[in-house]
Amino acid sequence: MSIHEECGIFGIYDPAGDCARNVYYGLYALQHRGQEQCGIAAVNNLELSCYKDSGLVGDVFSEPILEKLGGTMAIGHVRYATTGESRRENAQPLTLNYVKGSLAVAHNGNLVNTMALRREYEYKGAIFHTTTDSEVIAYIIAQERLRCNSVEQAVLHAMEHLRGAFSLVVMSSRKLIAARDPWGFRPLCMGRRGDAIVFASESCALDSVDAVFERDIEPGEVVWVCDGKVHSIQGPQADKSSLCIFEHIYFARPDSVIDGQSVHSARMLLGAILAKEHPIDADVVVGVPDSGLIAAEGYAKASGIPFADGFIKNRYVGRTFITPDQHSRELAVQLKLNPLRATISGKRVILIDDSVVRGTTAGQIIRLLRNAGATEVHMLSSAPKFVGPCYFGTDIPSKNELFACNHSTEEMRELIGADSLGFLSIDALEAIAPNSKCSFCTGCFSEYYPIPVGGEIE
Amino acid sequence: MSIHEECGIFGIYDPAGDCARNVYYGLYALQHRGQEQCGIAAVNNLELSCYKDSGLVGDVFSEPILEKLGGTMAIGHVRYATTGESRRENAQPLTLNYVKGSLAVAHNGNLVNTMALRREYEYKGAIFHTTTDSEVIAYIIAQERLRCNSVEQAVLHAMEHLRGAFSLVVMSSRKLIAARDPWGFRPLCMGRRGDAIVFASESCALDSVDAVFERDIEPGEVVWVCDGKVHSIQGPQADKSSLCIFEHIYFARPDSVIDGQSVHSARMLLGAILAKEHPIDADVVVGVPDSGLIAAEGYAKASGIPFADGFIKNRYVGRTFITPDQHSRELAVQLKLNPLRATISGKRVILIDDSVVRGTTAGQIIRLLRNAGATEVHMLSSAPKFVGPCYFGTDIPSKNELFACNHSTEEMRELIGADSLGFLSIDALEAIAPNSKCSFCTGCFSEYYPIPVGGEIE
Amino acid sequence: MSIHEECGIFGIYDPAGDCARNVYYGLYALQHRGQEQCGIAAVNNLELSCYKDSGLVGDVFSEPILEKLGGTMAIGHVRYATTGESRRENAQPLTLNYVKGSLAVAHNGNLVNTMALRREYEYKGAIFHTTTDSEVIAYIIAQERLRCNSVEQAVLHAMEHLRGAFSLVVMSSRKLIAARDPWGFRPLCMGRRGDAIVFASESCALDSVDAVFERDIEPGEVVWVCDGKVHSIQGPQADKSSLCIFEHIYFARPDSVIDGQSVHSARMLLGAILAKEHPIDADVVVGVPDSGLIAAEGYAKASGIPFADGFIKNRYVGRTFITPDQHSRELAVQLKLNPLRATISGKRVILIDDSVVRGTTAGQIIRLLRNAGATEVHMLSSAPKFVGPCYFGTDIPSKNELFACNHSTEEMRELIGADSLGFLSIDALEAIAPNSKCSFCTGCFSEYYPIPVGGEIE
Amino acid sequence: MSIHEECGIFGIYDPAGDCARNVYYGLYALQHRGQEQCGIAAVNNLELSCYKDSGLVGDVFSEPILEKLGGTMAIGHVRYATTGESRRENAQPLTLNYVKGSLAVAHNGNLVNTMALRREYEYKGAIFHTTTDSEVIAYIIAQERLRCNSVEQAVLHAMEHLRGAFSLVVMSSRKLIAARDPWGFRPLCMGRRGDAIVFASESCALDSVDAVFERDIEPGEVVWVCDGKVHSIQGPQADKSSLCIFEHIYFARPDSVIDGQSVHSARMLLGAILAKEHPIDADVVVGVPDSGLIAAEGYAKASGIPFADGFIKNRYVGRTFITPDQHSRELAVQLKLNPLRATISGKRVILIDDSVVRGTTAGQIIRLLRNAGATEVHMLSSAPKFVGPCYFGTDIPSKNELFACNHSTEEMRELIGADSLGFLSIDALEAIAPNSKCSFCTGCFSEYYPIPVGGEIE
Repeated sequence: MSIHEECGIFGIYDPAGDCARNVYYGLYALQHRGQEQCGIAAVNNLELSCYKDSGLVGDVFSEPILEKLGGTMAIGHVRYATTGESRRENAQPLTLNYVKGSLAVAHNGNLVNTMALRREYEYKGAIFHTTTDSEVIAYIIAQERLRCNSVEQAVLHAMEHLRGAFSLVVMSSRKLIAARDPWGFRPLCMGRRGDAIVFASESCALDSVDAVFERDIEPGEVVWVCDGKVHSIQGPQADKSSLCIFEHIYFARPDSVIDGQSVHSARMLLGAILAKEHPIDADVVVGVPDSGLIAAEGYAKASGIPFADGFIKNRYVGRTFITPDQHSRELAVQLKLNPLRATISGKRVILIDDSVVRGTTAGQIIRLLRNAGATEVHMLSSAPKFVGPCYFGTDIPSKNELFACNHSTEEMRELIGADSLGFLSIDALEAIAPNSKCSFCTGCFSEYYPIPVGGEIE
Repeated sequence: MSIHEECGIFGIYDPAGDCARNVYYGLYALQHRGQEQCGIAAVNNLELSCYKDSGLVGDVFSEPILEKLGGTMAIGHVRYATTGESRRENAQPLTLNYVKGSLAVAHNGNLVNTMALRREYEYKGAIFHTTTDSEVIAYIIAQERLRCNSVEQAVLHAMEHLRGAFSLVVMSSRKLIAARDPWGFRPLCMGRRGDAIVFASESCALDSVDAVFERDIEPGEVVWVCDGKVHSIQGPQADKSSLCIFEHIYFARPDSVIDGQSVHSARMLLGAILAKEHPIDADVVVGVPDSGLIAAEGYAKASGIPFADGFIKNRYVGRTFITPDQHSRELAVQLKLNPLRATISGKRVILIDDSVVRGTTAGQIIRLLRNAGATEVHMLSSAPKFVGPCYFGTDIPSKNELFACNHSTEEMRELIGADSLGFLSIDALEAIAPNSKCSFCTGCFSEYYPIPVGGEIE
Repeated sequence: MSIHEECGIFGIYDPAGDCARNVYYGLYALQHRGQEQCGIAAVNNLELSCYKDSGLVGDVFSEPILEKLGGTMAIGHVRYATTGESRRENAQPLTLNYVKGSLAVAHNGNLVNTMALRREYEYKGAIFHTTTDSEVIAYIIAQERLRCNSVEQAVLHAMEHLRGAFSLVVMSSRKLIAARDPWGFRPLCMGRRGDAIVFASESCALDSVDAVFERDIEPGEVVWVCDGKVHSIQGPQADKSSLCIFEHIYFARPDSVIDGQSVHSARMLLGAILAKEHPIDADVVVGVPDSGLIAAEGYAKASGIPFADGFIKNRYVGRTFITPDQHSRELAVQLKLNPLRATISGKRVILIDDSVVRGTTAGQIIRLLRNAGATEVHMLSSAPKFVGPCYFGTDIPSKNELFACNHSTEEMRELIGADSLGFLSIDALEAIAPNSKCSFCTGCFSEYYPIPVGGEIE
Repeated sequence: MSIHEECGIFGIYDPAGDCARNVYYGLYALQHRGQEQCGIAAVNNLELSCYKDSGLVGDVFSEPILEKLGGTMAIGHVRYATTGESRRENAQPLTLNYVKGSLAVAHNGNLVNTMALRREYEYKGAIFHTTTDSEVIAYIIAQERLRCNSVEQAVLHAMEHLRGAFSLVVMSSRKLIAARDPWGFRPLCMGRRGDAIVFASESCALDSVDAVFERDIEPGEVVWVCDGKVHSIQGPQADKSSLCIFEHIYFARPDSVIDGQSVHSARMLLGAILAKEHPIDADVVVGVPDSGLIAAEGYAKASGIPFADGFIKNRYVGRTFITPDQHSRELAVQLKLNPLRATISGKRVILIDDSVVRGTTAGQIIRLLRNAGATEVHMLSSAPKFVGPCYFGTDIPSKNELFACNHSTEEMRELIGADSLGFLSIDALEAIAPNSKCSFCTGCFSEYYPIPVGGEIE
């Protein structure tokens, strides 16, 4: 899967101290949301310090750095840099010094009115150090703070200016604040461990510090911790939430629960719906590791066709490696995913992946299965067809690279060499909404976006 | 699992050249057999060159190194260093210069008469640069070469001196040789890709270079390639082979086929036998990722109790990471394996791992499952109880660390906090032998070893 | 010598492009002014980009980075971080985006009213990302730019707010600007190479890019380059300049010419004056490498006593090295500076260093000379006694660490074990002023500072 | 200077332990003799261990490694690899295990009969791991040990086979041995520090561990330390010694004393002779840093013409650095050596370097001096003309690259653009011999070699 999430955020208040270490474990659990840069800001005795760099959490931080950061409050950030070149200056948390003291801000999401906001504030004298929307958010919070009585109010007022996706953790020298945009594009939840209060992009990060999940932050809500007490204001909120559906399909860890829905269960359910929408007469169901496995289990259970391990994934995938060039392209895939002859040979195979984006990998995997003796290969995608860009923080290829934008289903089937090809319907996605207030942003599949997107993409 | 294999070997003859790159892909596929050191030796125009270092295959080798190595023949080695400190000098392939030219040797296994051989040859004037049994093997081959007409004969004669486990690939300036000890302790197989001949510890490495599996090297057999032709001599062979049973239980990759038996099928079968030997009334079967998953699937299929994903493994496990100390020990495990509440909560769980060695991890995982809401946890090991050392190349903890050496099954059950605890029987292991000539070394479970082990352990 | 300069700056306009590479060579020549961080900002087609990091110039920049930076204008900075911990965020050039476009700023020096300025601007809504005075300077320039017609006017207006030491190179998308504070604390000069205009902290950096020295930037002057033409405004200027005397004594490279005075000649002259102030009957004059060598030559020439190589410096000093602890402390010094028995033994030695700060090194070196056979050791410092702090960008130890603050000359002599000890007089320093308008800041020797220093030290 | 020494060796016996750390300081002092690889072998309780790698001493060794090595005896080696590619396997000390125990060997020099010896021993069954002459030496010592009663006798017997240059330190589990070839091509000396006995390539390394120089090892002598006592046998010795003259001219550190002659004094003396052989009417004498400085001082003193600092060397030379290509070649030199206008401008300059090998650098430096205002530049070399190869461990360019092999002095003068050019005479070299038994190998200047060199060069 070549689609990337851009960020994960985490924050903790714990009077017992050592908060930076807790953030470290939280970020480790959220590492799948961003692998290029990471950072931790911590407060000790009202003093804020910060450390951030390019690299994985385990490479950037060392024992002495964590000890030095300490912290009775701390926030952290992991980031996938969309620009190819990752400017270290853009790493988060952002830290600011202004007349009211210091602020640290960590942001997951993407605004659709960044350029307009930058222009507006620059005319008022704003000076920016980076080109990120996150700095614009931090700047507006700081400016609003000059006009109101508290940081939490400043965050609330700032939210009125911001249009788009933002889940935030913000920290002043006394307060830890979590906020989520009115549409709830990106997840954000809250947990407790004794006196400690924890905020995280996903609930799996709460588990990583032994905190118990309490609830999700509501779209439009600002929650803050001050002197150990938790407060909340409900700001503007859309009628229906618009959680990015790709969180459930691919981004989030299966052990997370988002807005009341288990990600693992959601994927099982999508597989089951796929079985109803695309019943196929076959011998085994196999999933593309790792992302297609759960939907494949769901399909197998619903259809009664046995699930089987179709591929063995090389454990060392993801590390430094020289890719073959003189070999066939299939071999490059096979080095990572070797088909399991014992379960494939002589079988009619249903192959399930979480999506078909460009079609190249799908074609190679199907050829590998045929070489391993599969007599038929039926490809199913547990996501609908990708047809549109994302304006809210997901890095989707441009239209001319999207397989489904340029080919009919039958053309795609032929190009990838499958015996049949099917996609989940867009309507099916609503099935995983846990209640009537929860809905999803399906813009990349439907080109219908919860808010007007103008045309400004950065 | 805290038990380590010591080595993987690979060799290729290809008149088209670029053999070092092929070895690179082969070693990448065999990386699970040894992560501490690796090396490649190649022959170009009768000249032998070698590059080796500490580190993973992807870190040690770079494009320019592979290009420089080139090769119309090449052999390679990955190694797990048993001594804690990994002396770089011990990396393989070993290379030698002597009156007959050059030799490169790569060895998987462990001799039981190393000390006696060293003493014997040192008295005759031998000078050794390392303390490894592999150098003794290389030395004896070179010495025998002085007395006979060919390298393959030298390997055959050398085998008469060696007692213990050895799968070898040997390379002179003209020949590529593969040999396996008379008991067949360690696997070794052969494949072809057009004119190229390939030898590898496991068949998954043949796949990685697009070679087709041809056959296993027989115990006691010497196979050699000269000018593109394959020859073979059958040397001394035990009545029954004694493949290390732990290759099937844990070491080998599930996509490998060893001595005619698919490793994936073997694990499924062990799970099925476990279901017969230990029928349990429960709601779900879960495996400990990754090593217990296949046996758990086998148990589920045989018992009719549904298989479920019990844990989500952090994708970044295995990289640099600061382990928690102030946290509970369970948390340390949970950071790597987070239980999946959605499938566990309220369920009676059968938990399957490939072995229970020290008991500590088992206890922590069981506690995680209970915290996640499991009402019962029944622990099953798809291997029998570990009670003895290994003399043939596996790094097993000493007796006083082995759980089963110091406790009854009931004591173990209580210590790990399981509702029940069961182990596979030793007799069940024979079920995975593909034919009557194939048998296994089960010494670590039975303390019965195919050859007398004297007492010399290095 | 344990006294550090904080910065070196460099800027170039060259329509032929490749300016970043020129800055690279300039910074390499200025590396002695700061070894902890460095950076280069460049303008291509009105677009500004920047790369900076911790490390030496040769380690931070690579060929691809320089190529990518390119530039028809570029500025650069090397930095010694005073805070022990070097926060990467503080690396320069600073880059800003505001309504008028982009700005890059590189600063050498230290303000005495930073705190007051920060407070003043924060009350007006300023948001700072770092705690450096350099960011305050950049901020004020950007703010002034909003009220006046050009960047050069903005720099001129900003200078009215700033009190203390600052030599600046500033770059907008169209202009390259150099400015120096009204007192001329830190050096700044200008050169040409064909159509290219170059600014640098020291003239040795002009040589490094083959530019010909043209003139020094005057105290209080703002010089700017626009479309290849050089313009200048003379802003406020003190009656007499106050160049940091330590530039001549220690900081600057001997091949630089500052405000009309060759640094090498200045050091020779100080040695000659020392010979007049402290005539001694001895056999040889030796200097402590490298900083005391030129003054020792000057003393030798003036006194007629032969100069001799007293020590051989290990060429690898300055690289990674484990310092001895169980050895005597002298040995630690001796590993770096081994006395040359052939020239020392049996001689009465005059030992000249550029200063005596804490006295520890002096004592060790004197013991080394005695061990090597010196019959007498007379220690002379080519600087006066250190007695006060520096507020203008030099990192001087606190008073309780300064040898001369806590001991009489006789006490010092006894503690370091010299036969006699002498310091240059403060009055002698004026001898190296090239003309009546040039004077020096001698605050660290005299505690008389050219401007009131309030008490604010950061 | 583009001529390289190949090795430095060091050994110490100290019952107080921590010998590896002492070797570390010794190698640090000998780092100029080899920068590519280094290693230390140590004996603790009769057990030998070794650590070696590519890199500088300070980069290869760390505190934990030194602590682990410990040692009541230890030897070390620094190495310049002549082969361009530095094979890590060739790093020294070499360590061997054989029937008599263990041996470690460190070698400086080069044999002229390596190939013949390898062939001879390979026919007897020898197996070599490397292609170095040092392994041949170690092998022969070990073989001889099987036929005689002690390691020191084995070294003595081995010396009968070896023809060429070798200074050795050898260590068994009980003895530390130093030996020097019968011609004394390479230096080797001995010192004491209390009960400790130290051997080193140069006396400056004795100073680095606070040992007092005792004497040089004689050509043909074997010295050994056993149980704290020093013994010696005088083996075969040439009538006159043949120390490599380039040790005095360039290789050795000026603070070393070799075979009774101070290197610093020798260089001063060569400068003085140069003044007699080439009297010139000029204003200043300058040396090319660092290698020409001492001879320049010697010339100045003898001629009465004042010595002056002609160049300032960039302190960061020798570290990573991108060399200019689009700049003129002179600029590349100027970045390293900037001429000092203040002492050069308007002067007639005598420029002294330790040699003129290829002529390219000389030409560039002369142009730099002229650009800096020199009215005349007279170039003198404190070595004679290079005309022949070295067979004894020095890496001299091939004849077609040697300036003096292809041009007359007048042609050379014109090509480098000097007003005059002179070389020291070969006869003058004898002047630095301290006594009648000491002489020099001047083969690279005279093509007369102390022993027949056959034609075998490796």
